[in-house]
Amino acid sequence: MKPIDFKVSGFLFSGISAGIKKDGKRDLGLIYSEVPAQVAGLFTTNKVKAAPVQLNMERMKRGLCQAIIVNSGNANACTGSQGLRDAKRVSSLIAQQLGINENLVFPSSTGVIGSPLPMKKIEERIPELMDCLSAEGWMNTVEAIMTTDTFPKIEVATCRIKGRRVKLCGMVKGAGMIYPNLATMLSFLVTDANIKASLLQRMLEKASEVSYNRITIDGETSTNDTVLLLANGRAEHPILNQMGRDGEIFQSMLFKVCQNLAESLVKDGEGATKFIEILIRGARSKEDAKRAAYAIAHSPLVKTAFFGEDANWGRILCALGHSGVRINPNRIDVFFEKAPIVKNGMGVRPRLEEKAAEVIKKRSFKVTVDLYQGKSQFSILTTDLSLDYVKINASYRS
Amino acid sequence: MKPIDFKVSGFLFSGISAGIKKDGKRDLGLIYSEVPAQVAGLFTTNKVKAAPVQLNMERMKRGLCQAIIVNSGNANACTGSQGLRDAKRVSSLIAQQLGINENLVFPSSTGVIGSPLPMKKIEERIPELMDCLSAEGWMNTVEAIMTTDTFPKIEVATCRIKGRRVKLCGMVKGAGMIYPNLATMLSFLVTDANIKASLLQRMLEKASEVSYNRITIDGETSTNDTVLLLANGRAEHPILNQMGRDGEIFQSMLFKVCQNLAESLVKDGEGATKFIEILIRGARSKEDAKRAAYAIAHSPLVKTAFFGEDANWGRILCALGHSGVRINPNRIDVFFEKAPIVKNGMGVRPRLEEKAAEVIKKRSFKVTVDLYQGKSQFSILTTDLSLDYVKINASYRS
Repeated sequence: MKPIDFKVSGFLFSGISAGIKKDGKRDLGLIYSEVPAQVAGLFTTNKVKAAPVQLNMERMKRGLCQAIIVNSGNANACTGSQGLRDAKRVSSLIAQQLGINENLVFPSSTGVIGSPLPMKKIEERIPELMDCLSAEGWMNTVEAIMTTDTFPKIEVATCRIKGRRVKLCGMVKGAGMIYPNLATMLSFLVTDANIKASLLQRMLEKASEVSYNRITIDGETSTNDTVLLLANGRAEHPILNQMGRDGEIFQSMLFKVCQNLAESLVKDGEGATKFIEILIRGARSKEDAKRAAYAIAHSPLVKTAFFGEDANWGRILCALGHSGVRINPNRIDVFFEKAPIVKNGMGVRPRLEEKAAEVIKKRSFKVTVDLYQGKSQFSILTTDLSLDYVKINASYRS
Repeated sequence: MKPIDFKVSGFLFSGISAGIKKDGKRDLGLIYSEVPAQVAGLFTTNKVKAAPVQLNMERMKRGLCQAIIVNSGNANACTGSQGLRDAKRVSSLIAQQLGINENLVFPSSTGVIGSPLPMKKIEERIPELMDCLSAEGWMNTVEAIMTTDTFPKIEVATCRIKGRRVKLCGMVKGAGMIYPNLATMLSFLVTDANIKASLLQRMLEKASEVSYNRITIDGETSTNDTVLLLANGRAEHPILNQMGRDGEIFQSMLFKVCQNLAESLVKDGEGATKFIEILIRGARSKEDAKRAAYAIAHSPLVKTAFFGEDANWGRILCALGHSGVRINPNRIDVFFEKAPIVKNGMGVRPRLEEKAAEVIKKRSFKVTVDLYQGKSQFSILTTDLSLDYVKINASYRS
């Protein structure tokens, strides 16, 4: 089997240990495009935004990015004006080394909130970080952004636009963010497509809507959440500045990569032992379907029942009942995969329940709820709430 | 030390095992007033309401109650028309035995959702339940309503109204409801005061606002949550039908009893190892203060940090940031008891942080957040999220 080739024309990657993480693992990464790339970005909606997020939201306005400097082990959040100065300083040091304008460098951080960046460590290791830059350095960068993730998450895809082969590579880190989504999600995507920043931004927003946004709680994001997509044009097809047929081709590739990355995030949810899709159908509106889905996905009682492999459907109905969504308690069906567990708001007979109880023993399954209120639907991905979730989060800083 | 006297004039209590709970513990209780009592009640706002709740909301309209028949081990929720028939049948059997109108009997249930009430077991044991009725039977009734509670919760208080001694006794069960409040809270209060149902209702609503409602999530209640307050007038003071000075005396006694019961609920939160008051001050409105307090109290990351005794204040700011409440991230102070941990949105110096880190090791402490946005404040009680919480809820039915 040929190893997957993550190289994307014109992009170089690096990742080293700068001693920011206590365990000595990689914690400083760099992504560099040999030419300035068009950039699209999505940032946390949390009102408490980390210093690098504040800086990037400003730099985004120019539509260009040439380098992403990222560290794990320290979020540079809640660090006041010192935090902003540090984020600027890091990007300016990288800009000097690369010989580019510092506004083309986007800093990013993830880790513990509230401590100043260990600038001395970072500054000392920047030469090493530069030395390691290479077209094959992807995995080093991925490792450098991991926090509680248990495996690296990376995806690659190709398509053809106007006769040219176009490649897209993406990486993501997350782990804690599945629920309640307070740990940071970082995702960096690079492509050699030639797409104007404004179109790229619309494409990224659309792709996130059916990927990252399906696994996060509306508006409940960490201080550092960041998705950046760089397109450096090295595939050398004529520039795309509106959707059209070629745009759609790129868009579907982007969908696929983002969805795969989002799924891998859920699969690596902190302490997760189950990987559950929750589909609400028959809702009065999409908004209702979404609220109902999140009410179930966020209920610790539902999630602990999944962990315990207990087909405790009463907790699902209970979550629906307090979701604020219009329901008729006597007209709700619930299925685990295709096995009915609730019919007309009541449990099915024991023999039927056994089938649903078998489903819940699987590592990955789908819960479908039919509200019989309308025609709208919405689905999200979530995990169970396990003993390890508590263990991991009770001792994260120590 | 004299044992506490829980007797209230004119009330009899009973509690037996009818084999509804698998462990053979008490699971069927009865509270009986020798004369019809004025009644006030509060019920779940969940749209999925258990059969007995539906029935009681109807019976409440008459303003009178003479008996409460309660079982644990089975919630009689999501049981359709059969559930309603069963709730009616149980109350009618009790009414026959007591020789009273069945509309004066309020049924109540708590336990697993979705199984029909084991009517045969209940019917067979009603004679025994009657035989055990006594003025001293309080503790038996309290035991009969317990589910995952680890200790019985009972409070008593007295006051003087128009020269007469008035007594109030209350019991509560809860445990799982602290967060996310999907396990059932039942609270039954009885008094020999002579108060009109309409006034009694206002008093109960006011008392709940500063007790039960401070520990529950707005609108997120179980299918069975019920608070009932019976006043049988046996203290024989002239009837109170408006607040006035005497009403205030009773009201403050009711406040105290409900607050103590609510506190004991939190202290017995499922798997709880910490008992935390969260006070938000300096909010723009009371609604904002409430939202901010709940955002912190509901964050599993904050709660697991408390469990791990980790003064991870970043998670508190993060929860505030996504609460939807107006904040200035650079103008927030946080205190653990009196020890500052965050000043102007940033962590205090390490030496100061050590003091806060000491506070979090206590079993019970107060977290104060100042938002500097206005003059409103709100406080709630909550618990940590422990390994035992997950263990209890992953195996509740098995």
